[in-house]
Amino acid sequence: MTDPPGAPTGRTFASDNWAPAHPAVLAALAAANEGHVPAYGYDPWTEGAVARFRALLGDDVAVFPVFNGTAANILCLEALLRPYEAVICADTAHIATDECGAPERYLGSKLLTVATSDGKLTPQLAATRLRGLGDEHHAQPRAVSITQSTELGTVYTAAEVRALADWAHEHGLTLHMDGARIANAAASLGLGLRAATRDLGVDALSFGGTKNGAVGAEAVVLFRPGLADSMLFRRKQGMQLASKLRYPSAQLSALLDGDLWLANGRRANTMAARLATAVADVPGVELTQPVQANAIFVRLPAAAIPRLQQHAFFHVYDEQTGLCRWMTAWDTAEADVDAFAAAVRAELAG
Amino acid sequence: MTDPPGAPTGRTFASDNWAPAHPAVLAALAAANEGHVPAYGYDPWTEGAVARFRALLGDDVAVFPVFNGTAANILCLEALLRPYEAVICADTAHIATDECGAPERYLGSKLLTVATSDGKLTPQLAATRLRGLGDEHHAQPRAVSITQSTELGTVYTAAEVRALADWAHEHGLTLHMDGARIANAAASLGLGLRAATRDLGVDALSFGGTKNGAVGAEAVVLFRPGLADSMLFRRKQGMQLASKLRYPSAQLSALLDGDLWLANGRRANTMAARLATAVADVPGVELTQPVQANAIFVRLPAAAIPRLQQHAFFHVYDEQTGLCRWMTAWDTAEADVDAFAAAVRAELAG
Amino acid sequence: MTDPPGAPTGRTFASDNWAPAHPAVLAALAAANEGHVPAYGYDPWTEGAVARFRALLGDDVAVFPVFNGTAANILCLEALLRPYEAVICADTAHIATDECGAPERYLGSKLLTVATSDGKLTPQLAATRLRGLGDEHHAQPRAVSITQSTELGTVYTAAEVRALADWAHEHGLTLHMDGARIANAAASLGLGLRAATRDLGVDALSFGGTKNGAVGAEAVVLFRPGLADSMLFRRKQGMQLASKLRYPSAQLSALLDGDLWLANGRRANTMAARLATAVADVPGVELTQPVQANAIFVRLPAAAIPRLQQHAFFHVYDEQTGLCRWMTAWDTAEADVDAFAAAVRAELAG
Amino acid sequence: MTDPPGAPTGRTFASDNWAPAHPAVLAALAAANEGHVPAYGYDPWTEGAVARFRALLGDDVAVFPVFNGTAANILCLEALLRPYEAVICADTAHIATDECGAPERYLGSKLLTVATSDGKLTPQLAATRLRGLGDEHHAQPRAVSITQSTELGTVYTAAEVRALADWAHEHGLTLHMDGARIANAAASLGLGLRAATRDLGVDALSFGGTKNGAVGAEAVVLFRPGLADSMLFRRKQGMQLASKLRYPSAQLSALLDGDLWLANGRRANTMAARLATAVADVPGVELTQPVQANAIFVRLPAAAIPRLQQHAFFHVYDEQTGLCRWMTAWDTAEADVDAFAAAVRAELAG
Repeated sequence: MTDPPGAPTGRTFASDNWAPAHPAVLAALAAANEGHVPAYGYDPWTEGAVARFRALLGDDVAVFPVFNGTAANILCLEALLRPYEAVICADTAHIATDECGAPERYLGSKLLTVATSDGKLTPQLAATRLRGLGDEHHAQPRAVSITQSTELGTVYTAAEVRALADWAHEHGLTLHMDGARIANAAASLGLGLRAATRDLGVDALSFGGTKNGAVGAEAVVLFRPGLADSMLFRRKQGMQLASKLRYPSAQLSALLDGDLWLANGRRANTMAARLATAVADVPGVELTQPVQANAIFVRLPAAAIPRLQQHAFFHVYDEQTGLCRWMTAWDTAEADVDAFAAAVRAELAG
Repeated sequence: MTDPPGAPTGRTFASDNWAPAHPAVLAALAAANEGHVPAYGYDPWTEGAVARFRALLGDDVAVFPVFNGTAANILCLEALLRPYEAVICADTAHIATDECGAPERYLGSKLLTVATSDGKLTPQLAATRLRGLGDEHHAQPRAVSITQSTELGTVYTAAEVRALADWAHEHGLTLHMDGARIANAAASLGLGLRAATRDLGVDALSFGGTKNGAVGAEAVVLFRPGLADSMLFRRKQGMQLASKLRYPSAQLSALLDGDLWLANGRRANTMAARLATAVADVPGVELTQPVQANAIFVRLPAAAIPRLQQHAFFHVYDEQTGLCRWMTAWDTAEADVDAFAAAVRAELAG
Repeated sequence: MTDPPGAPTGRTFASDNWAPAHPAVLAALAAANEGHVPAYGYDPWTEGAVARFRALLGDDVAVFPVFNGTAANILCLEALLRPYEAVICADTAHIATDECGAPERYLGSKLLTVATSDGKLTPQLAATRLRGLGDEHHAQPRAVSITQSTELGTVYTAAEVRALADWAHEHGLTLHMDGARIANAAASLGLGLRAATRDLGVDALSFGGTKNGAVGAEAVVLFRPGLADSMLFRRKQGMQLASKLRYPSAQLSALLDGDLWLANGRRANTMAARLATAVADVPGVELTQPVQANAIFVRLPAAAIPRLQQHAFFHVYDEQTGLCRWMTAWDTAEADVDAFAAAVRAELAG
Repeated sequence: MTDPPGAPTGRTFASDNWAPAHPAVLAALAAANEGHVPAYGYDPWTEGAVARFRALLGDDVAVFPVFNGTAANILCLEALLRPYEAVICADTAHIATDECGAPERYLGSKLLTVATSDGKLTPQLAATRLRGLGDEHHAQPRAVSITQSTELGTVYTAAEVRALADWAHEHGLTLHMDGARIANAAASLGLGLRAATRDLGVDALSFGGTKNGAVGAEAVVLFRPGLADSMLFRRKQGMQLASKLRYPSAQLSALLDGDLWLANGRRANTMAARLATAVADVPGVELTQPVQANAIFVRLPAAAIPRLQQHAFFHVYDEQTGLCRWMTAWDTAEADVDAFAAAVRAELAG
C-alpha cells in the first residue's frame, strides 16, 4: 500500500521499508567509494558479492544484483517462463498484488492465483490451477512462486518448501522464491541461506537486501546454471543494470559478511514476537495470523487505530474489519516494543 | 560497451561511470540515514529533491527519481508515446545502441534512427524519418529524442535544441532530451538547468545524476503537467520505484545543492579540453569530433593503444580504425591529464 | 478446450465452431469476388458492412472488422485500458481462460477475476476487485468485461447489463462486452443489436460472426467515438488488418442482412431448449445451469459419456464430475436434437 | 501504403492485394463447407494442407496456417528470437516499414535495418549490423530476414539466398524468409517450393497465399523441428488461431494442388515482364529496378501520373521523384497490360 505523505517519522511499526540502512551498509558504500573501477558489474566489489553468495550457496550459482524486489522477481520469472507460460502463486503474493501489473507487462505471462488462509501455497492448492496442460487455449503453468516469509508474516517450514519443490518438479514446473524477507524466514527456521533455499529445491531466488538493512540492493539468484545463460542481457533489457554496480554489490556483501543479514532478520523477528506476546492478552487485540517472522497481523477496535498510529505509525489493511499490520525491522528496539505494547494495553484495557 | 573484467583501477579515462561518487553525495546518504520515514517517495528527502527541481525548473514540473538512465529514458518516452508511435533519434543514441532493446521491449515502439556526422540531429535529418503520417501501415513518428551532451562528446547549442523543439511541435511531435550528461552540456553552454532544457522547448528530460557523481540516481522530469498524470503508476510498473526512495532523492539533492552538478560537469569538461589541447599537436593523434563536453574521440595508431591503456584505461570504439574514446569525470585531476598527455606524447612522438 | 483429432464429423453438439458457414455467407464471399478493389478496408464491401452496423447502432459507431474473437476482445480492451490498468471479469471469461494469456501478453494488463456461480458478473461481485484505486502499487481497475451470452450458456438480462454499466461508469470504469455469441444473447432477450448493447451502456463490443455462421469474421465495435481514434493503427499493429478485407466485411454484411445473425442465434437457442427439455426428466441427467442460449451444461454418468459421444460428439468439461457441454449451432436440426435426446434416454433410462 | 477510399475498381496495377480470389480457392471454401469438423485445426482440411506442405517440403516440416502476412512474419521470428535478440533486414523490408511496429510491439525485439539499392541483403551488408556480440548493452543479432520476392520487385538468386543462409549459420544466426510473394520468386527462379526455400538453408518461411489468389491465408513454415515445439501456443497467444481453421487450410490446399500457386505467380510475373517490355522504350518512362517478379518500379513525369491512374489505378511511392509501382496479379490479363501500355505510350509519347 502507499505510505501516506506526512506520516510521522521516528521508529514506527509501518514497514521494514521505512527503516534506515544498517551502519555497516553505509560503511561499505564509503569503502567502495575509492578510485575508478569498471562499470556494469565488472568490478572487484561485484566479484566479491558473487563470491560471497557462491561460498554460501555453491560454486555454480549465478548471482545478478538488481535495484529492487519487483525487478528481482520478474527477472527470476523471466528465466523460468516463456510468455505463454504462467506462474501459480498465492493471491496475496507481492507479484500479484503489489507490483502494479509489472509481471504481466514485462513478461506477458499470466498469474494463476490461489486463495490461502495464511499466505502459504500448498501442493494441493497449487494443483487447483494446474489445468489445461498441453492445451493451446490455456496459458501453461510452468512455475510456482512463493514468498518466504510471506506477505502475511507466516513462514513456510522447510518441509513445506520441499514439498512444493517436489510437486513442481514432478509436474514439469519450477519453483521461484520471492525472498524479499528471506532473512526473516531463515532466522525463523534456524537455517542458513542454502539450507533455506537451494537445498529445499528452489530453482530461482529473489534475494532481498533492502528490507534487511540495505539502502537498496536485491539479487537474482539462479540455482540451475542453464537458467542464467541469458541473464546478463535480460537484466540490461529489463532496465536493471546499474552502471556503478559496485555500490549495490558492496551493500550485499556487507549484509552477507558475518551473517549480518541473518542477525538483522533475527532481531526483527524477535521484536515482533516480543510485541505479539506483550499484547496477546489485551482485550480487543486479535492476532489473525501466527507471528513467525517480522509482521503481526492484528485486528483492533476502529477507534483505537488512529490513536495508536499517533504513538507509532502502522498500516491499516482493512478499514472494515480493523485489520492492521505491525511490522518490525532490523532497527526495532526493545524499548520501542515495550512502549508501544504499553500504549496498546493502555488504550484498549483502559 | 562492456567494461572488461580485470581492467586496471585508479583514475582512468574509461568512463564517468568508472568514477566514484562525490563525497557530498555520500555525506547526503549518511545524513538521510536517520529514523523511519515513509517508503516509496512519500518522505521528506524526496519532497526536498522535488522542491529543488521545482525551484530550478518551475513549480509545475513533475519529477520522478528512478534507478538508472535507461529507465529514465524509457519512462520519459512512455509519457510521450503510445506503442504504435515511434521516436526519431540519431543512430548513435544511447536508446538505440546501448539499452539492449529495452525501448522496443518495454514500449513496443519503433526507433527511427538517422545517421549523423557528430551525434546531433537536426530538423533536416529528423524530417527524413517523418513519413507515413496517418498511414496505418507505418509506426507514427511522435517524439524526437536527443542526447545532450551527445554520445560523441558534442553539445547541441541552445539554438539547435530550440530549432528541434520548434520543428517537433510544428509537426505534432514532442521533444525528449536524454540528459545522462546534461550537467556537462549545461556547463559547456554556460546555461542553468532551465535555460538548457525547458526554456528551449524540451518536453521531457532524463536528468542524469550517476555519471555526474552520484552513487546511482536519475530522474524523469516532465515539463508538461498532463504528461505526468500516470507516471506514478508507470514508474512502479516499470520496476523503477525504490522502496527506500529517500536515498536516490538525497543524492539528487546533494548534486543540486550549490550547483554541485554544474561544478562537476564543468570540471570534467575542463579536464577534457585540457587533454585535447595537450595532445592536439602530437603526430598520430587525430581528434575526430569537436571536444565540447567530457569525451574525446580520438584516432590512435593501433600499436599505441594497449600501451596507453596500461597507463590509464580507456575504451576502443573501432578496432579497425583505431578510434578510441577518452572520457573525463568529476574527479579527473589536472595531474591525471598532464601525466596521460605526456604519455601520449612520449608514446607517439617517441 | 482443444478439439480432439479424429473426432467424428457430421452434425455434433461439440461447438458452434464445429459448424460450417451459412450458405448466405458463402454466397456473399462469391459475390464479393469480383474485380479489383482497394485493400485494407478501403473497399465498398467494408463500407457496406460499416454502414449496416451504423444503421443498427447509430451513425457515430466505429466498426473495425478483425479475424477472430480473441483479437476483437483484445483490441476492444486496448481502446479502454493502459498497461497499468486492469479489467475485472468472471473467472470463466474467455479472455481469462481461453486466450492463452493473449491479453496479458499484448496489453500488459492484469485480469482481475471473480468466481461466479453462473458465469455472470454483478456489481457486487465486481466490487470485490475494485481495490487499491489511486495506489501506485496496484494495477488500476479501469474496465469491466462481460461475455454475452456467457461461457456457461447463461444470458445477462438487460437490467443486469445496465446495472453493470452504471456501476462501471459511476466508478470511472468502462464496460466491454465479449459478444462472440451476442446473437444468441440478443435472440434470447428478444432484443435488437442496439437494444442489447449500446442502449444498455456498453462502451465496446466484440461482435461475433464466426460462431454465428461466418467462415471467420468478427468486429471491434466502439460506441464512444474517442475510443476509436487510434484503432486503425492498433488493428494493424495487432496483426489484425486483413489485406483483402472485403471478404471478412462481406461475411459480416451477410449476417446482418435480413437479420440473419438473429435468426441463426434464435435457431441455435431453440434447439438447445428443445434438447434440454427433452432430457430434463431422464434419470442421471443433471442440468447445472439455466439453458438460456445455445449451450447446455449437463452432468452425466461417466460410463454413458463415451457412448453418447459416439452418437454425436460433445466436450467433457470435468472428468471427475462428469460435467459436459452440449452446444447447438445455426445448423442444428430438430432431427439431430430428437435423435440425440432419444439416445440419451435410451442410454440412461435403459 | 494506404489504399485510397474511392479508388477506381476493375482490374488495376495497384497491388496483388486488390485482386479477387482465384475461383479454385472459392470452390475449395465451398467444398470445405460440409458438416461439423473439429475446430482450431484438428480437422481433415488442415491435416490435408499440412500433408501437402510436407509432400513438397519434407515430412518433418511444421506448418501453422495463420491469418495474414504480418502475423506469419512475427510468429516465424518469435520462433527464432528472444526479446533481447535482434533481426537484421533491409530497410525496405515489410517487417520494418509496413507492419506499424508490430514486430517491436509483439516480440520486443529490435530490427537492425540496412540500406540496399535493390531491396536485397547480402552477407556484406548484413555484416555491417553484426556488432556487439556478447555485449549485454546491445540487442544481439540472431536472425536475418529477407523478403522473396522483395518489396522492390527483385528476386534473390538461389545462390544469393544460400550465401545469406551460410553466412547466418556461420555466425550463429538463422534465416527467415518473408515469402508473402514466394510464388512469384519461385516462378521467377524456376524452382519448386523446397528448392527455393529449405534447400537453400532457410530456417523459417512465411508462406504467402493471400497475394497469390487466396481470400486470406498464410502459413508459418518451420524447417527445423525444434523451432515448432511451442508454436501451437505462440499462434494462439498471438491472436492467430482461427476457430474454423478448415477454411484457411482449404485455401492453402487449393493453391498447392496442381501447383496453382506457381501458375498464379508465373502469370503475374509474365504480365509484369510484358508490361515492362512494352513501355521500356517510351520516353519519360524510367524503370528503376530490374523487373524480376510482379512489380515494376517506374519513374514517370508528374503530370502523367493522375491521368494514367484514371486508366488503371496504381500507387505513387514518391511524389517528389515521380516514383510509382505497377503491380500485376494472378488475374492480370494480357489485354489489361496491352491497353495500359498503350495508354502509357499515348500519354507520354503523345
